[in-house]
Amino acid sequence: MSRVAKHSVEMTQAGIDSFHSTIVIDEFGESREIFLTGEKPLTIYLDKIEIVTLMTMGAQPELLTLGYLRNQGLVKSIDDILAIQVDWDVEAVAVTTKQSDVDVEQLLSKRTVTSGCGQGTMFGHVMETLEGLSVNCPSFSAGTLYDVLNGVNNYNQMYKKAGAVHGCALCTPSGDIALFVEDVGRHNAVDAISGWMWLNNVSGENKVFYTTGRLTSEMVIKVAQMEIPLLLSRSGVTEMGLQIAKQIGIGMVARAKGKHFLIFNGSEHFSKN
Amino acid sequence: MSRVAKHSVEMTQAGIDSFHSTIVIDEFGESREIFLTGEKPLTIYLDKIEIVTLMTMGAQPELLTLGYLRNQGLVKSIDDILAIQVDWDVEAVAVTTKQSDVDVEQLLSKRTVTSGCGQGTMFGHVMETLEGLSVNCPSFSAGTLYDVLNGVNNYNQMYKKAGAVHGCALCTPSGDIALFVEDVGRHNAVDAISGWMWLNNVSGENKVFYTTGRLTSEMVIKVAQMEIPLLLSRSGVTEMGLQIAKQIGIGMVARAKGKHFLIFNGSEHFSKN
Repeated sequence: MSRVAKHSVEMTQAGIDSFHSTIVIDEFGESREIFLTGEKPLTIYLDKIEIVTLMTMGAQPELLTLGYLRNQGLVKSIDDILAIQVDWDVEAVAVTTKQSDVDVEQLLSKRTVTSGCGQGTMFGHVMETLEGLSVNCPSFSAGTLYDVLNGVNNYNQMYKKAGAVHGCALCTPSGDIALFVEDVGRHNAVDAISGWMWLNNVSGENKVFYTTGRLTSEMVIKVAQMEIPLLLSRSGVTEMGLQIAKQIGIGMVARAKGKHFLIFNGSEHFSKN
Repeated sequence: MSRVAKHSVEMTQAGIDSFHSTIVIDEFGESREIFLTGEKPLTIYLDKIEIVTLMTMGAQPELLTLGYLRNQGLVKSIDDILAIQVDWDVEAVAVTTKQSDVDVEQLLSKRTVTSGCGQGTMFGHVMETLEGLSVNCPSFSAGTLYDVLNGVNNYNQMYKKAGAVHGCALCTPSGDIALFVEDVGRHNAVDAISGWMWLNNVSGENKVFYTTGRLTSEMVIKVAQMEIPLLLSRSGVTEMGLQIAKQIGIGMVARAKGKHFLIFNGSEHFSKN
């Protein structure tokens, strides 16, 4: 079970189906069968060094691993990665690289320094990578945003079935969905998209990033790392998320649902029609 | 600025008001002023050792720090804590203890082992603390749950104003709210409640824990650590969150909103009236 993408990384395809069901009792005392979101631990080993254990739905474990290593700066180039092998029996993924000049232990020691929203883990050097970074927010209209919202509306499967997940999508401004990922944590979903872009050599330029989740600092940092110039969320925004978007020039639209949305940054690129 | 609680910890009272506002553009191209959730970094230093940087709204920084140290097992007893001093000018909190037999560096090194939902940080030894733990779920009725839902309905201030936050409450079964905390991450809110319980010597017995957030494994673990026997959420549940609740005997009610709720665990303690 391996496949060859644009970059030839030897990968398992160990995505699992997270549709479980359980019996619950409702307010009338009646029993009902409902869907439950799967959640499994997956421990990442990078060249045999234990990095972190992520809790994941498990739909895209290889892409999640790739994106996590990319966003945390633990692997410099996709070409350095030789293999990604997920084994659910031991709830682990083994990553083999040919990089020899990266001191992983030293990078890990910085992990104490910075933690993201919701007590997420970010390594101390991540913020430094944003210095001097800027993107060009494209012109966009209400129609652009509605196209994207309509596009993602066909996805969000797990959310509609079981809830307790966040969905993220990489879209074109015309609403074509390049990739849609759901996971128990919005950080996992964005990492998996980042991993897919890395593997397939897809740049963030002229893309729109959609998420069901809130735009806290850590989410905006990840979108900035992918150099995506326009960010759309169904939920709200925090002060620091907005500050980072302004600093980098990312167009930020939130509370986007149905026909409504609010533009938090980049309104100079917006036209109603 | 210090206060003396049940345990005499010297504490600042550096909670900040997170009500900011910003101008946004809506779908009609009209500008509107809306509230924005604050988000600030706060770095915890434990006896001068840098532990972690949390992103927080900043309303309860001392309680957040206390609860974080408690839930991560970095301080054994509240009586070991001498002072908690928050200084927003340097975005840091200094914790002074008299514990000498805890090897913090060694505990920190385990941090690589386990990370929670949404890439939260949990130390490797936290799961071990749950072994053998069990709670007694009390009898509860639909009325109990409605009382709690009505009780919390008067809070959720920031959520109603700005969104992008999660609220948690420690309640009695009759719907009295002992403490309500909102923060950008649901983990922070639950940690602050845990810190308050520790400081004021409040046990989890015969309490109900309410959260607006999803019941993933990490949330349920934190409620279990506080030994609270009944857990109520406006949102959904993950497979592993449910598994842990079953293991420990926590009554778990989710999708609780208005007159609706679903009992995921502990329905044998439920009566309609």
